[in-house]
Amino acid sequence: MEQRGARLAAVAYGVIETPANMQLHHRLDIIFRQVAAMLERYGPEAAAVESLFFNTNVRTAFAVGQARGVALLACSRSGCDLFEYTPQQVKLAVVGYGKAEKAQVQEMVRVLLGLDRIPSPDHASDALGVAICHAHGAAMRDGVHRARSAAQRRPTAGAERSRS
Amino acid sequence: MEQRGARLAAVAYGVIETPANMQLHHRLDIIFRQVAAMLERYGPEAAAVESLFFNTNVRTAFAVGQARGVALLACSRSGCDLFEYTPQQVKLAVVGYGKAEKAQVQEMVRVLLGLDRIPSPDHASDALGVAICHAHGAAMRDGVHRARSAAQRRPTAGAERSRS
Repeated sequence: MEQRGARLAAVAYGVIETPANMQLHHRLDIIFRQVAAMLERYGPEAAAVESLFFNTNVRTAFAVGQARGVALLACSRSGCDLFEYTPQQVKLAVVGYGKAEKAQVQEMVRVLLGLDRIPSPDHASDALGVAICHAHGAAMRDGVHRARSAAQRRPTAGAERSRS
Repeated sequence: MEQRGARLAAVAYGVIETPANMQLHHRLDIIFRQVAAMLERYGPEAAAVESLFFNTNVRTAFAVGQARGVALLACSRSGCDLFEYTPQQVKLAVVGYGKAEKAQVQEMVRVLLGLDRIPSPDHASDALGVAICHAHGAAMRDGVHRARSAAQRRPTAGAERSRS
């Protein structure tokens, strides 16, 4: 996602899927390579990810953790900054209400990015929500410098949990 | 760990530690680089890891999952085969009893590898137990071919969960 002055634009979004019948370490390799390729292609200045969600079970947390680990590794290797936001922070930033419904968040993501449709699948829309959350926070953090450096600004990559 | 005929030997073992105050993605980078360096140095034919343990909480599973993800990625990149064993399988293989106490496993790891002391820290000893478990299974799987190809046999890397 890119910020042009006060306007936000979706540069690219999507989800990474891997074959369920493939061995785990090879699936992780696919995730790593695709995230690394995306970071190289768009060269974002920052990556934003959803922080740990507690309302899940141990097996899911473990699986998601492994996928997230290799995605974060790709960020580290590409040299971009990493930021984490809770689902509540994302809702607050996107909708203005920390307990917003999923559908409200998706609709606001669509509106804020000026898209015709809600980005699909849901994970992609969620990831853009995280990127918007970061952009809003960043706007508050460095509002003074924004006008000056807008020309050099690079996009922000938002990442939602990968499918596994 | 290396298998020479019926004898097992510890080639190298240890744990990877990362600074607690470092950003997560940089800590994962350290784990990835150290595992990759070890795989390159010893060129094991297989890596064996402990499978998901359920008796933990979501936060731990998520943290361990991330570290494990980058370790498995290093295995995938190095081209070595990956095997998973449950703690029970490891105990059964090392002690002969699936509900063995931790101290019994550690002592048998020491005996089987002909070491003077129990490998320290505990995580290193646990990792060697996983490697022994794999070696025992591998011995059963390819006993027929072992004598023939012993000369080309490469060591097995055992990995216990990384500290995080």
